[in-house]
Amino acid sequence: MYKLYSMQRSGNSYKVRLALALLNAPYQAVEINILRGESRTPDFLAMNPSGQVPLLEIDGRHLAESNAILWYVADGTPLAPEDRIDRAQALQWMFFEQHALEPSVGAAYFWLALVRGGRELQTHALEDWMERGYAALQVMENHLKTHDYFAAGHLTIADIALYGYTHVAGQCDFDLGGFPAIRTWLRRVEAAPGFVAMDGAANPATATPLPA
Amino acid sequence: MYKLYSMQRSGNSYKVRLALALLNAPYQAVEINILRGESRTPDFLAMNPSGQVPLLEIDGRHLAESNAILWYVADGTPLAPEDRIDRAQALQWMFFEQHALEPSVGAAYFWLALVRGGRELQTHALEDWMERGYAALQVMENHLKTHDYFAAGHLTIADIALYGYTHVAGQCDFDLGGFPAIRTWLRRVEAAPGFVAMDGAANPATATPLPA
Repeated sequence: MYKLYSMQRSGNSYKVRLALALLNAPYQAVEINILRGESRTPDFLAMNPSGQVPLLEIDGRHLAESNAILWYVADGTPLAPEDRIDRAQALQWMFFEQHALEPSVGAAYFWLALVRGGRELQTHALEDWMERGYAALQVMENHLKTHDYFAAGHLTIADIALYGYTHVAGQCDFDLGGFPAIRTWLRRVEAAPGFVAMDGAANPATATPLPA
Repeated sequence: MYKLYSMQRSGNSYKVRLALALLNAPYQAVEINILRGESRTPDFLAMNPSGQVPLLEIDGRHLAESNAILWYVADGTPLAPEDRIDRAQALQWMFFEQHALEPSVGAAYFWLALVRGGRELQTHALEDWMERGYAALQVMENHLKTHDYFAAGHLTIADIALYGYTHVAGQCDFDLGGFPAIRTWLRRVEAAPGFVAMDGAANPATATPLPA
C-alpha cells in the first residue's frame, strides 16, 4: 500500500489525493504541516532532499514532485492516456502547470490564502504572479474553448494537475469571470465519480490516516 | 521525420537538439528568434498557444514543452528508463528542473546572457533567482554526491533536461566552484557519444536545417 506524505491545503498534495480517490486506490496518509517546518526535519529531508510535499512511499522507495507521482499512480489506468502522442500531450500540460500556473497562481494561493500577511511581504512578486497567472489561465481558456479536457479527449492526470491550483484561484485575487470555459471545465472535473474536494476528508472508503 | 522549431541559444530548445543528437535521430530544424517575436506570430501561436520554443511537429501534430518533447522522442530508447519507478524518478527530476532550476538559472541566463541589460530591469527578481538557483543546485549536488546520474543509474532524459541550464549557469553569475559533483557530472554528460554543444551545429549527419 502507498504511504502519502501530504498537506491538506497544499494544491500539489491535493492533486495526488484526488487522483488516488478517483482511482479508488488505498493509501496511508501522513499529514505534514510545511508551515511548521515539518518538511524540513532531518528525517523528512532524508526521504526528500527538496523538503517538499507531496511525497509517495512505495515499498521503501520515495517519489517526489506531484506530477511525477500522478504519472506513477495513474500508469496503466484510464487516467493515463494510452496513445504515445496523447501521453506526451498530457505531459506537456503537466509541465505547463509546473512552470506557468503553479509558480503564479500557486504562489499567490500560498501567500494570500495559507500564510496570509503575504500581501505586504510580497508586493513586487504579487504583480508578477497576477500577470503570469492570468496569462496561464488565458492559455488554458483558449484550449478549453474547443476541448472538453486537456489531453486524449477524456479526464486524465493533466486535468487533475491543472485542477489543483485553478480551482483555488478565486481564493487568491484571481477573477475567473472572464474564463467561462475554465469554469465549465472545473465543474466537469468535479462531476467525475469518486471526486473529493481539497478540504474534504480523504476518501473514507480507502484512505487510512495515520495518527498525527 | 520530426520538424523542430527551436532557438539556438535557448536552453529549453537545446535539450531537445541534444537528445535528438544522442539518439542520432534525423529532423528538420527551423530557427525561431524569440527575441524578435517570431514565436508570437499568428502562425506560430496557431501551432503553440503558449508562444514558446521548442515545438516539435510530428505528422502534422504539435507537441510543446521541452521535457514533454524529451519524453516523446526518447520513448523506447536507452535514454528513457524501462522500470516503472525509474521512469517516475526521471520525471521527478524533470519536473524539479521546470519549477526549481529553469525559473531561476534559466531566467537569469535569459536576462543576463541573452537579452543583456536585464540586470537593471530585473533588480528585484535577480536576488530571488540567485537564492532559488543556488538552492536548486544544492539539491542536485547532494544527489550527485552519491549518484553518477539522476535516475536509473545511467544517462537519461532527466540528465539532458537538467544539463540544459546547469551548463550555462556560469554565464549568468552563478559560481559552480562549490559544486564539485555537478561539475564532474557536466563532464560526464559531455562525454556521451553523439554529444553536441549548445553553440555547436546541429548534428551534421542527421539534421536538415531549413532556410531562415
